[in-house]
Amino acid sequence: MGSRTLLPVLYRNRLARLQKLLKAHNLSALLVTTPENRRYLSGFRAVDPQLSESSGFLIVGDQTTILGTDPRYEIEAHEEARGFFPFIYDRGLEGSWDKIAEKINGLKRLGFEPGGLTCQFHGRLKKILKKSGSRLELVPAADLVESLRVRKDPGEIRSIRKALAITEEVFREINRSLKPGQTERAIGWKIKTLIHQKGGDGIAFEPIVASGPNAGRPHAELTDRPIEKGESIIFDFGARWNGYCSDLSRTVCLGKPPDRFRELYGLVRGAQLAAQTGIRAGMTSQEADQLARGVIEKACYGRLFKHSLGHGVGLATHEAPSLSPVRPVSLETGMVVTIEPGLYIPDWGGIRLENMVAIGKGRSELLNTDQSFYEF
Amino acid sequence: MGSRTLLPVLYRNRLARLQKLLKAHNLSALLVTTPENRRYLSGFRAVDPQLSESSGFLIVGDQTTILGTDPRYEIEAHEEARGFFPFIYDRGLEGSWDKIAEKINGLKRLGFEPGGLTCQFHGRLKKILKKSGSRLELVPAADLVESLRVRKDPGEIRSIRKALAITEEVFREINRSLKPGQTERAIGWKIKTLIHQKGGDGIAFEPIVASGPNAGRPHAELTDRPIEKGESIIFDFGARWNGYCSDLSRTVCLGKPPDRFRELYGLVRGAQLAAQTGIRAGMTSQEADQLARGVIEKACYGRLFKHSLGHGVGLATHEAPSLSPVRPVSLETGMVVTIEPGLYIPDWGGIRLENMVAIGKGRSELLNTDQSFYEF
Repeated sequence: MGSRTLLPVLYRNRLARLQKLLKAHNLSALLVTTPENRRYLSGFRAVDPQLSESSGFLIVGDQTTILGTDPRYEIEAHEEARGFFPFIYDRGLEGSWDKIAEKINGLKRLGFEPGGLTCQFHGRLKKILKKSGSRLELVPAADLVESLRVRKDPGEIRSIRKALAITEEVFREINRSLKPGQTERAIGWKIKTLIHQKGGDGIAFEPIVASGPNAGRPHAELTDRPIEKGESIIFDFGARWNGYCSDLSRTVCLGKPPDRFRELYGLVRGAQLAAQTGIRAGMTSQEADQLARGVIEKACYGRLFKHSLGHGVGLATHEAPSLSPVRPVSLETGMVVTIEPGLYIPDWGGIRLENMVAIGKGRSELLNTDQSFYEF
Repeated sequence: MGSRTLLPVLYRNRLARLQKLLKAHNLSALLVTTPENRRYLSGFRAVDPQLSESSGFLIVGDQTTILGTDPRYEIEAHEEARGFFPFIYDRGLEGSWDKIAEKINGLKRLGFEPGGLTCQFHGRLKKILKKSGSRLELVPAADLVESLRVRKDPGEIRSIRKALAITEEVFREINRSLKPGQTERAIGWKIKTLIHQKGGDGIAFEPIVASGPNAGRPHAELTDRPIEKGESIIFDFGARWNGYCSDLSRTVCLGKPPDRFRELYGLVRGAQLAAQTGIRAGMTSQEADQLARGVIEKACYGRLFKHSLGHGVGLATHEAPSLSPVRPVSLETGMVVTIEPGLYIPDWGGIRLENMVAIGKGRSELLNTDQSFYEF
């Protein structure tokens, strides 16, 4: 149950949009276990400390707004998820079930999120429902809340902008103080410190500082390697603000950039510009990817662009839509995506440049303000 | 397949112990998706950045040692998981499956980890197997690797000791510099910084600094509240070292501790000492919990001790065994657990003291060296 009238307008609207989807899928309610979806619909901010440790779930339907959580989060449940009925399982989920059994009694088909639910939790729930004599049927219902989250409202875009502004400030400060001999790990720690100092909630993901040959790996861990002159150094990091993520990549070279760096950098920057100015609503993700990939393929370097053009960013760092050359999806106004072409040469290094855009109809909006690109 | 002869002895032994369990469960192999289990059996250190983003899985059986991962982790797979056959799904799991189809052709029953696998991944895998004409049957097999991990070998205990030693050093430094007016958030950040400076891999979990009424919540988030004299301040944090976690709680009071603090602190410390000296192999988790709870109940404060006595610690901060008053398990030599009685009074504050012990037959071994407890 819960009291709809207490729900802040933001969440009431999101629940109303979800309700339409539930109807279309012939579902009485949805069990929401994916942490970002939980927060998106209720405002409950708790994260899941481990895969095996859920901090709670929602059950949302036409007349139902329940937040289930354990006693550790009782106060937060009341404070953050206003209008939700707090189901506190203080004797374990099994032992406490009778507290909500009656409230979900009328429901027939309960959707669940297959990507946000472990087989174990699913099995436990099935057992509990059976034992309580419930006739509630559990039905897989993938990507319902994700399909709402994919288009950002103005408030969400403001949060993403703020997260990105912090990230860019951090990059500029890091870039100004770069010196040969600093290790990747030390720079990585400085990034985290600056994100904290500049007011980020935290990091959106573990920072990447990949220098020299390490920059030849699209995904690199921080090492104790000292950075040197004349090599490429890829930065890829992001701050989180108000729960929302940002994602920025820049590549720099200390001292005089060698010819290969200049050539590849120019190519990647050209590909990025082509995509960030050309991407717009109505296009497919594949077409967007091709805007950048085409530039690189024309220079016969297609083979070195080893990943997709970009991905959606929101409450999660990686979310829909994927700007992938396979499995095309249609791009819509309000989607926020990264534009991050990259070239990688094993044992030499790599170049990656990543901006973020909010997709619009005529033209998309660049969310970055940093313009510290090389112009060769 | 993979080459058994290349496997480091540590992993060969662990796989041999797992093999016995597989036989007993009539399984040809196990699909390992839980990140800690993956690392425990192979040495592959990658973590899963999001619930929806697995960095890989193992398939381990009598003649099978496969590490599946995407191209981002290809180099790490080769470097870290020696002796494992690297199955790199560069065209997605579905598109690349033929690279291992033949290697798992002879397997009949493949166990999976229900607590470490999403319903989505399970569904995808079922489809892939069906499409590839495989007759491999997917069978839930919970807690097999966890049952090996629960007893630590001497190398693991050394790593945990080191993680805890870093944590204790950090606590002492924090404690020495505590001053009224410092905020919980600022102290929390200092904890993270010191863990980094003293050589931790990172934090085992988000630090808790809960002051005054906030200490009345067993699980508290950092706030901007400044700490004050005369109130209880609970610290709960841990460093990670070589992948292994540590977990420490201390409660302090700036200035002269009020009577209630003295009384409750003495009680919690008494309960902790009773449990940490009394706990031993052969006991049940319930009996261990009762060692501490009995002391508190005798003083008629049982109602305020709102959680279990402790939990196992290893590659995960929270793992088996749970020292819970319900669902008793038998304690065995080599288990590493926390002993953390606590009392919480809403609106006033709380006291929690947490040490770690390695369980032994005659007597268990205290892993802490910090002795900065009040003696009233």
